Amino acid sequence: MSNAKDNQPYRWRVRVYYEDTDAGGVVFYANYLKFMERARTEWLRAHGFEQNAIRTALNRLFVVRHVSLDYRLAARLDDMLDITVTLARRGGASLVFSQEAIRVADGALCCSGLVKVACIAADSLRPKPLPDQLLAEIADVL
Amino acid sequence: MSNAKDNQPYRWRVRVYYEDTDAGGVVFYANYLKFMERARTEWLRAHGFEQNAIRTALNRLFVVRHVSLDYRLAARLDDMLDITVTLARRGGASLVFSQEAIRVADGALCCSGLVKVACIAADSLRPKPLPDQLLAEIADVL
Amino acid sequence: MSNAKDNQPYRWRVRVYYEDTDAGGVVFYANYLKFMERARTEWLRAHGFEQNAIRTALNRLFVVRHVSLDYRLAARLDDMLDITVTLARRGGASLVFSQEAIRVADGALCCSGLVKVACIAADSLRPKPLPDQLLAEIADVL
Amino acid sequence: MSNAKDNQPYRWRVRVYYEDTDAGGVVFYANYLKFMERARTEWLRAHGFEQNAIRTALNRLFVVRHVSLDYRLAARLDDMLDITVTLARRGGASLVFSQEAIRVADGALCCSGLVKVACIAADSLRPKPLPDQLLAEIADVL
Repeated sequence: MSNAKDNQPYRWRVRVYYEDTDAGGVVFYANYLKFMERARTEWLRAHGFEQNAIRTALNRLFVVRHVSLDYRLAARLDDMLDITVTLARRGGASLVFSQEAIRVADGALCCSGLVKVACIAADSLRPKPLPDQLLAEIADVL
Repeated sequence: MSNAKDNQPYRWRVRVYYEDTDAGGVVFYANYLKFMERARTEWLRAHGFEQNAIRTALNRLFVVRHVSLDYRLAARLDDMLDITVTLARRGGASLVFSQEAIRVADGALCCSGLVKVACIAADSLRPKPLPDQLLAEIADVL
Repeated sequence: MSNAKDNQPYRWRVRVYYEDTDAGGVVFYANYLKFMERARTEWLRAHGFEQNAIRTALNRLFVVRHVSLDYRLAARLDDMLDITVTLARRGGASLVFSQEAIRVADGALCCSGLVKVACIAADSLRPKPLPDQLLAEIADVL
Repeated sequence: MSNAKDNQPYRWRVRVYYEDTDAGGVVFYANYLKFMERARTEWLRAHGFEQNAIRTALNRLFVVRHVSLDYRLAARLDDMLDITVTLARRGGASLVFSQEAIRVADGALCCSGLVKVACIAADSLRPKPLPDQLLAEIADVL
């Protein structure tokens, strides 16, 4: 992916709809986890991997083990957000992503966080090494 | 269930939290479907059936085939709602429920609707007759 | 909008993520209402109207009064869906939309429905005629 | 509250429904934030404060500034969970809660986390000291 090679993080754009907001008039804070997962999924797809195919062809699932989020500025209805994906650390059976939600209109940082994802076997649910194909593919972004 | 025998519909109480609301300051309309499913699930549990057990022991799943909802009055944060469950019709492989969301504070009707649920085999996903055990149990409420 | 003029319904594409699915392995049925609202919102935006601007500049809100959905075929994780928007009827203070969720891979119909949306004043919450600007804009699609 | 005085954390019980799960067959990880907020809201209510009343009578809102969650064991459909609420730290304009999701059937820890909530003015959205009434009420639990 070209944007990985020039050290710009991968970005996935999301729009804020009513479904994402709460009675405070802003994006419900739990929903940034949804936005961030959409971006990680598209990052993975851009590297050639679909979650379904990883499960069926490689017998692997990715499960979230840890999240840590800081909320800075509340996004609102109709806002467009860029969700970044940076691979911050690679373990033998896990990946740590650093992610941000940035308001497109003015570049303001709404939310930033770390998400640790573990690789497990789809059948036994036991921890498993990351698939070689994936490691080869993401070697250039670490 | 005693409340079925005296023709009062089954009721399940839910509280409105921030997660249920949207930027309009009210309950997001799609979420009444969640409230209604909670009530149907508890109605089923009150009759002795858990969804997980129905799947594993009886190889049956219930899937929603049709919903129709009318929105009358918007519920708000902190409101308590009674969600009713009335079995309106029983087919060979389906059940139709009539349900309402009633604001506890004043008895106002917030939302009413019909939900048609079909019974399918958990393995083949093909339509299947309702389990005999369930039919025997709900005979008194139709 | 060109696609309105040649009688093709407006389409908005959505991807199915984990957030949209449930333990049955398919899209949770209530979530089609979210997909359909995203499509109506983008249809409105394509006609030059943002929900926020309608509220602040025109003192109008659109609220959902009725939904009716039929579920045909369950969409799954990673599926791409086209959500159609057809303006089926225009009242003085309401719009009725006919919408479908179509699986892009094979054109299969997953879900179809009607959504009635009423126009109300953002301050008094009373029913109000549709804004003239909007009526003029959508005259060609009815 | 009696359970605070004998150093047992406050507990709020939630049931896992289809709406809470994802295609992995387990509770979607973002939804633990919903469960934890329900428990904090009920903890607050048990201390005599409703979110709506705090906003209208005291001109205060609580907003989440930081969350950090560790996922240990995946809860499933029909599971009953106890969500604990422990007030871990009190700042001048913020509260930090330590929370756990515990499977009732066997006491297994599913998820644990910290949630930092800030107090702001409902009108200006600026940071504000915690209301005196609330401080007096929670003095015994810190």
